[in-house]
Amino acid sequence: MPTSERAEKASEIATAAGALALRYFRQLESLTVEEKGHQDFVSQADRDVETFVRDELSKIFPEDSIVGEEHAPTIGSSGFTWVIDPIDGTANFVNGIPIWTVVLAGVRSGQTELGVIYDPCYDETYSAVAGQGASLNGRKLQMATDKRLSDGSIGVGYSNRTSPDVTCKLIRSLLDEGSVFQRNASGALSLAYVAAGRLLGYSEEHMNAWDCLAGQLLISEAGGCVEEQNADHMIATGGRVIVGGKGVFKHLVRISEAAFDG
Amino acid sequence: MPTSERAEKASEIATAAGALALRYFRQLESLTVEEKGHQDFVSQADRDVETFVRDELSKIFPEDSIVGEEHAPTIGSSGFTWVIDPIDGTANFVNGIPIWTVVLAGVRSGQTELGVIYDPCYDETYSAVAGQGASLNGRKLQMATDKRLSDGSIGVGYSNRTSPDVTCKLIRSLLDEGSVFQRNASGALSLAYVAAGRLLGYSEEHMNAWDCLAGQLLISEAGGCVEEQNADHMIATGGRVIVGGKGVFKHLVRISEAAFDG
Repeated sequence: MPTSERAEKASEIATAAGALALRYFRQLESLTVEEKGHQDFVSQADRDVETFVRDELSKIFPEDSIVGEEHAPTIGSSGFTWVIDPIDGTANFVNGIPIWTVVLAGVRSGQTELGVIYDPCYDETYSAVAGQGASLNGRKLQMATDKRLSDGSIGVGYSNRTSPDVTCKLIRSLLDEGSVFQRNASGALSLAYVAAGRLLGYSEEHMNAWDCLAGQLLISEAGGCVEEQNADHMIATGGRVIVGGKGVFKHLVRISEAAFDG
Repeated sequence: MPTSERAEKASEIATAAGALALRYFRQLESLTVEEKGHQDFVSQADRDVETFVRDELSKIFPEDSIVGEEHAPTIGSSGFTWVIDPIDGTANFVNGIPIWTVVLAGVRSGQTELGVIYDPCYDETYSAVAGQGASLNGRKLQMATDKRLSDGSIGVGYSNRTSPDVTCKLIRSLLDEGSVFQRNASGALSLAYVAAGRLLGYSEEHMNAWDCLAGQLLISEAGGCVEEQNADHMIATGGRVIVGGKGVFKHLVRISEAAFDG
């Protein structure tokens, strides 16, 4: 199946998964929530939505591998791997904040070939296919090239895998440069916002593949800048994510590296 | 007119104002945006929505005073002052981020008597009347009393009226305490989220009255903690805003003061 058709199927599945997740979101009082680590949450919604996405993918693509945040990997024979996050922004979700997404990426030979990020609360679908551009609800995305750090806001990420030192140093540098930071607690949505030109860039010392691969492809296909990374390596270990428009990227890499290096 | 009826009128006006703002939001490409100060934006939408709110209030309450973010104050004779922000979160608005609100507060004799925050993108109305409780879309709000800083997230604010030092020190302290920070760039919505139990608290060194009075009343009426402040003084100069549930408030005041004092 051509990658663009795979992306269409992924969009359909993300939309259905988002609708399922929304039903849980609207009945939060009855949701079972566990803490996987300090301030790292998982709910029955995450597990059930991932199961739904896996089942749907397996029906259409029985030979593909599937890697998700909440369940063990499924190993297929096709060489194509789906990397999924049923709910990116679980802390928001379980607290009733309508900022979370369903994420699907498709990887082959270390390259991300497609990415879909669906925001159910605002009904926005971000989709990208390698070499074929990025879109938001079907409208082509094209990032600005002339914006600088001081012209807008940069998204930052923080998790229990990063030290306070690193995050504070990054924020301090952004403010010193006349930029502003946001942290909306959904890394994938933040990356989608970069692709849509809503944020000028994003930086986080460590993201997992299911949170970042789709967004990085969106940005790259929308004319923005991402670092060269092997997607298989990202699936195995995660890694740093620094992205932005052409006018901010090098600057953001410089101050991010200074923060990450301590 | 009883305060509860005033609050109902305020909700109706906020809803209509939000619908007007949404029409601009969906045609962002044609919106005129100016920079009032560094990273401090105003658009034709802010101005037109404020004019709409002022006109609606003046029709129903011709004797009242009106103070808003974008236009000069209207001085009335009733002793009741409306404090309005047509679009709180303008930077988000002009960049296409669906996180902004319409805010109306009502003040008499230095006390906030009512507050309404409307989130048009997610269609949520937060409303409070002094002594009569707070609600979200008609459902009574009651904040948890047992949550501590390390149990969730604290909203932080940043503007060109605050030094990077203060903001970075506050974030550093929050992370050191095992808490997490968010900055969604709409102070009023963040305060509404605190009242709804979505964030555990909020801290900002300086907010203007139109951004904070409604939210502070919401929190107080939802069983949370706010600092004693004279609303007339806040209208004149703005001031610091530290709010939270009973389990986090004192702790948040302590680390906020340490940050604000440099």
